[in-house]
Amino acid sequence: MSLKPGVSTVGFIGIGVMGKSMAGHLLKAGYKLHVYTRTQEKAEELVAEGAVWQDTPAGLAAASDVIITMVGYPKDVEQIYLGEQGLIAQAKPGAYLIDMTTSSPLLARRIYEAAAARGLHALDAPVSGGDVGAREGRLSIMAGGDEEAFEAVRPLLELMGTNIVLQGKAGSGQHTKMCNQIAIASNMMGVCEALAYAKASGLDPQTVLKSIETGAAGSWSLSNLAPRIIDGNFEPGFYVKHFIKDMGIALEAAKDMGLDLPGLALAESLYQRLADMGYAEKGTQALYKAYRP
Amino acid sequence: MSLKPGVSTVGFIGIGVMGKSMAGHLLKAGYKLHVYTRTQEKAEELVAEGAVWQDTPAGLAAASDVIITMVGYPKDVEQIYLGEQGLIAQAKPGAYLIDMTTSSPLLARRIYEAAAARGLHALDAPVSGGDVGAREGRLSIMAGGDEEAFEAVRPLLELMGTNIVLQGKAGSGQHTKMCNQIAIASNMMGVCEALAYAKASGLDPQTVLKSIETGAAGSWSLSNLAPRIIDGNFEPGFYVKHFIKDMGIALEAAKDMGLDLPGLALAESLYQRLADMGYAEKGTQALYKAYRP
Repeated sequence: MSLKPGVSTVGFIGIGVMGKSMAGHLLKAGYKLHVYTRTQEKAEELVAEGAVWQDTPAGLAAASDVIITMVGYPKDVEQIYLGEQGLIAQAKPGAYLIDMTTSSPLLARRIYEAAAARGLHALDAPVSGGDVGAREGRLSIMAGGDEEAFEAVRPLLELMGTNIVLQGKAGSGQHTKMCNQIAIASNMMGVCEALAYAKASGLDPQTVLKSIETGAAGSWSLSNLAPRIIDGNFEPGFYVKHFIKDMGIALEAAKDMGLDLPGLALAESLYQRLADMGYAEKGTQALYKAYRP
Repeated sequence: MSLKPGVSTVGFIGIGVMGKSMAGHLLKAGYKLHVYTRTQEKAEELVAEGAVWQDTPAGLAAASDVIITMVGYPKDVEQIYLGEQGLIAQAKPGAYLIDMTTSSPLLARRIYEAAAARGLHALDAPVSGGDVGAREGRLSIMAGGDEEAFEAVRPLLELMGTNIVLQGKAGSGQHTKMCNQIAIASNMMGVCEALAYAKASGLDPQTVLKSIETGAAGSWSLSNLAPRIIDGNFEPGFYVKHFIKDMGIALEAAKDMGLDLPGLALAESLYQRLADMGYAEKGTQALYKAYRP
């Protein structure tokens, strides 16, 4: 069981809710797995299942043919890849570096170029599908980079996702993820405003859903998150604080391209207000609270 | 084939694209159909199939046990129902009046009350599903009014729609339709902004859809209207000018309830800008043009 002859050790950095499931699929498939994450105890379960703990990203890099990162913020990505003890400096010649964090498209290009200059193959490959998709190996994986590198690591990606698409050159995976978040951002306003209006006008929101969710107003969020809102369940599928991060990246990238996205800007400001109200650790459906606090 | 014993003549006012299909289903089912519409020639086909032309709403009212209206704007609804020669004044005792126009919830309540005072049964029952839904008899029908009246006319509604829900007292059908339009309005911004971002960042929008349309960003609009935008097809399924009318009704109703809907307000202003650019007669997907003119 190997990626290709001589390529069989995968390093995984970032063992959070998503990363743990994703790395677990690789381990189960028989890859040698080395792991590093900021809080060591989060990796304990994987280590118990056979993963090798590494104390530093540099140590992990020295041992790995393919390195996958799934960390928090662009600044974390930047440090892990481009810092002095970073992956670009430390990776084995010819290694594949796959950043699956939702991060900046521009940073993805910088990493790609720095990697290429050292004979390394970098891909950006953020995902959607959340913790459930990660657990079930059914993520949507949006990749950017060279086709050859993408095809080389495809067997690994197929252990984690079902909808795996190379979107274009380096940065294109991140740009595609931004499209995803942009579409969600305004739609969440629509879902929450429809429910706020339903409530204010004395309708039964559950009955309203019966009329509207299968037609032109239908969406994943309306079918999956509106019922949680109606039940008063604001627990996180996807965290408000992470969504604000993503929208910030998208707004900055759009600004760089001279593109005005007023819907996204409005959604971001409403989510920021929501975080200020104390809902940063809740799920994105908590946006409803910004309308009816 | 009748609604119930003694109830077999239906008057239909407003033979537009939607109304023509809807009235046609009633005629095919064997109801005696009387029709009136502002532009007589639009009714010619139905008359050729057996419908009876009436020169005035009053004449139609005198002949009908059930009257269905599907006209343009709230002011048309107000005139037809509450004007001097209007339906409330002219309808036969015990008649059922069903307004299927997307119109004001407050006006629906006024009509209901005026009708009740004269022993008439008024329902508001706007629809979604567009020209295709009307043609195929698969509309979603959102009704408001008394349950008894709703059940009495249900056999008629079932000829026009498949998802038929009584949402509550008079006005509730219109309020539900507003929920539908509110959800669509912000989502359209999300869809168009995602595509504008995709284009600006050099992605292939078609390939982007492959990655995002089946996940949390998925929506009816993303799957059905984004491909038209990508093809440069801005022909109307649903007209920009009609959507602006609906958003105006929703914003006014929200204001009356002291409810702030910033996403809807932003969408309305973008669509207004789009109409000012000359796209009022195009489909709602033309919103894309407001981002990349």
